[in-house]
Amino acid sequence: MIGVDWGTSSFRAWRLGADGGILDRVSAPRGILTVEAGTFEAVLRELVGPWLQAGEDTILVCGMAGSRQGWKEAAYLPCPADAAGLARALTPVDFAGARCFLIPGLSARDEQGVPEVMRGEETKILGLLDRLPPGRNVILSPGSHSKWAIVQDGTVLSFLSQFTGEAFAVLSTHTILARTLDKSAPMDWAAYDEGLVRARQPGGLLHHLFGMRARGLFGELADASAASYLSGILLGHEVAATLPEGTSHVFLVGDGGMMARYARALAHAGVTTTEVPEEAAATGLWHIGQSLGLETTR
Amino acid sequence: MIGVDWGTSSFRAWRLGADGGILDRVSAPRGILTVEAGTFEAVLRELVGPWLQAGEDTILVCGMAGSRQGWKEAAYLPCPADAAGLARALTPVDFAGARCFLIPGLSARDEQGVPEVMRGEETKILGLLDRLPPGRNVILSPGSHSKWAIVQDGTVLSFLSQFTGEAFAVLSTHTILARTLDKSAPMDWAAYDEGLVRARQPGGLLHHLFGMRARGLFGELADASAASYLSGILLGHEVAATLPEGTSHVFLVGDGGMMARYARALAHAGVTTTEVPEEAAATGLWHIGQSLGLETTR
Repeated sequence: MIGVDWGTSSFRAWRLGADGGILDRVSAPRGILTVEAGTFEAVLRELVGPWLQAGEDTILVCGMAGSRQGWKEAAYLPCPADAAGLARALTPVDFAGARCFLIPGLSARDEQGVPEVMRGEETKILGLLDRLPPGRNVILSPGSHSKWAIVQDGTVLSFLSQFTGEAFAVLSTHTILARTLDKSAPMDWAAYDEGLVRARQPGGLLHHLFGMRARGLFGELADASAASYLSGILLGHEVAATLPEGTSHVFLVGDGGMMARYARALAHAGVTTTEVPEEAAATGLWHIGQSLGLETTR
Repeated sequence: MIGVDWGTSSFRAWRLGADGGILDRVSAPRGILTVEAGTFEAVLRELVGPWLQAGEDTILVCGMAGSRQGWKEAAYLPCPADAAGLARALTPVDFAGARCFLIPGLSARDEQGVPEVMRGEETKILGLLDRLPPGRNVILSPGSHSKWAIVQDGTVLSFLSQFTGEAFAVLSTHTILARTLDKSAPMDWAAYDEGLVRARQPGGLLHHLFGMRARGLFGELADASAASYLSGILLGHEVAATLPEGTSHVFLVGDGGMMARYARALAHAGVTTTEVPEEAAATGLWHIGQSLGLETTR
């Protein structure tokens, strides 16, 4: 089968063997924002053509391709949800010569009833299932909107999102903080740690943001350290507000740079982490494919 | 004397009588961003010319005109500070035919040693002195960066800033939240109150921001209500994080729209408020002028 993670800004696909092994891979800067309406089938065919010619006839697609702005809307599946549930909720799309399905995202409600959504992360989370110990596990997927999921025995029980990545992007670009912040500077881990410490002090996130400005004015925060400090403040606040009580370990799945930052923020909170490569999505796609096979042969 | 509040985007001036009464006033869209370097004296002369011709010979200027980007930098005066202290720390600027001084801003350190600054608000705060009861009082000045000051017996003991106004501006303009937010809609007080309630729930500010997005996606938050809801979330977080323990009353000084929002957020937290018109700056300028008179005639 062919598994695809088709996001807002990037496209990744894998040819998967019967045992879930990765036989081949392709990636391209062809996120859904670059795809004209009505051309999703053609773009996909172009990118995975050789595998189709080699006989593959099943394609599973996760990510923003299933959003309103994508190929076709694949309605969110409410939690609790597992691979079999996702396989039952696939949205078929036309693809000459193969069967092609969009995987729905997941929805949930937080304890106060406010809705939650994810699209793409659910597949990465399913890709981790084989690595998880029995019982309740916390999985964190960094991103513009990071996702903290509670998973037990193969089922995503609930999850919670944080606006951290997007907040960092706008604060470091469009506010007065940007004037004394050098985005091109390398990561300054000491400044990042200062931000983590700051996040545990009183006054709240909005106060800590102003203090960053004042530190810059007083020559107490170098432009080259400012982005790292801001990142520490934001991730420190995220971890303090989100970490489920009693959590001692978190599984991290996602991209390299942010993984190290989250691992450090969690270590600062006394929590150990396991980092799982982003290719977990390939395994997740295979798990859903397995469930799909069972469904269709019955 | 002539008192001037010269800010980033606006210019306001008052002709003040010997008893502090306002004899005349002028305002213009001539904030320091509109003034070319080297032309501050000329612009000021143009705006208050008639009062000079009528015999005024002392001008006191507060606000961003005293910043590095303004007329001349008037170094921050550290707290605790009072009117006499500010009068002793004035920065003279050349002005043919009159004595003209810039009032310094104030600086402070929060309990963790992180610096704080204000410029302009100190003068408004001094303008409230006659209205304050004896003892410790909390004064809140809304703005891009709101200021919470602790004032006792005429002295600003300390203060704390919050990035709330600027955070609202960038979140409602440059993030995904902007896509489902109608800025032109009138204030929706019910949505604002929902935001205040939301701010007291678990998950933190960054989670509450994502929840706003998800509510929009699920049709549970109208575009016309989104800005009010966001405002309630932010002010709710600000008040919860900043309100000094045991505070039952806050004096609000500032502009109309934000005053009502802060009064409501504080009422939600069980705190009563007194709203003081922004022209408090004129009274503050007069107080500093009085101290200046004493200093110079001794």
